[in-house]
Amino acid sequence: MNLSSKLLEEAVNAFASLPGIGKKTALRLALHVLTQEENYAKDFTESIIKMRKHIKFCRECFNISDAELCTICESHRRDRSLVCVVEGIKDVMAIESTGQYNGLYHVLGGVISPIEGISPNDLEITSLMSRIDKGEIKEIIMAVSPTIEGDTTIYYISKKLTDNSIKISTLARGISFGGELEYADELTLGRSIASRRPYNES
Amino acid sequence: MNLSSKLLEEAVNAFASLPGIGKKTALRLALHVLTQEENYAKDFTESIIKMRKHIKFCRECFNISDAELCTICESHRRDRSLVCVVEGIKDVMAIESTGQYNGLYHVLGGVISPIEGISPNDLEITSLMSRIDKGEIKEIIMAVSPTIEGDTTIYYISKKLTDNSIKISTLARGISFGGELEYADELTLGRSIASRRPYNES
Repeated sequence: MNLSSKLLEEAVNAFASLPGIGKKTALRLALHVLTQEENYAKDFTESIIKMRKHIKFCRECFNISDAELCTICESHRRDRSLVCVVEGIKDVMAIESTGQYNGLYHVLGGVISPIEGISPNDLEITSLMSRIDKGEIKEIIMAVSPTIEGDTTIYYISKKLTDNSIKISTLARGISFGGELEYADELTLGRSIASRRPYNES
Repeated sequence: MNLSSKLLEEAVNAFASLPGIGKKTALRLALHVLTQEENYAKDFTESIIKMRKHIKFCRECFNISDAELCTICESHRRDRSLVCVVEGIKDVMAIESTGQYNGLYHVLGGVISPIEGISPNDLEITSLMSRIDKGEIKEIIMAVSPTIEGDTTIYYISKKLTDNSIKISTLARGISFGGELEYADELTLGRSIASRRPYNES
């Protein structure tokens, strides 16, 4: 695309470097910024710079936070005996938005993946262990992706906790609510028959 | 969405203020910036600020430009007797990317629209007239949208040029290349039959 302006081209390239933004969308975004008043560009970029510069990670659970301790870890309303172990901060947001969970979190920063070169030492596992060693936590919920890497991570952490009386649980797996049976994948459907539950319990 | 961080929330809102970007995409973009090294955010925002601050509009054709005169108006390879009149800078890019046009441009900045309160005085029509008055231009191509507003604009400009020997042309209208006849809208198809052309000419 000939943009007749080096400055515009650089802004378009900047937008196009974002995930899921192609050149055409990037051009639309750049032209949008261009047609707004100058304060718009200033506010837009400042909020990004401020976030990148000042955002912290909670020293307890490694969720993103504006302070040393995140709002969840700081809250007195949370069940401190329950910790949900997740891969990333997006998972915290997803679980929080359900409104169904009232415990704390622990963000691993990924899952064990030899192929991608992610070993247990690259994850926040040691810090999880020292949180558990403090004795306040009674149960950890392993809310990681249902993949081989996720399962490996659950296995690794469970092995480390064999001497500990802590309860380890995983998310329930089965067919989705509102999903149609015919569209469920075979593995999920097969497993959900194998681990069927008494009608009254559900 | 509970983001547990005011800073992140502000960055997400900034991204979500862009056209076509929803809250979920905005979050993905903000987290992307967050996980890149700090220079990424700096470069990203700087190119946007630089564009917004330093970009100019060509004093001849009102296309965007890094200098007083845009690269198209400055070029010695362009046919200076031919001016393509367009609504916006995006149209210049679209026509340039065809590689079929070798004349100059004139960006109106919109079309006459009483409903939206855009009068001829809000557009770069006076500047077009003074460019034409210089006598170098032999033909103007009215490449505006085929809408009532576009047609009004063409009519208004043609009326202003009645005393002038300049040739005014519009873009050919008809069925698209590669389009299937059955999917062409009735108006276009009807008009393209009415204004059919001898086989050898096309």
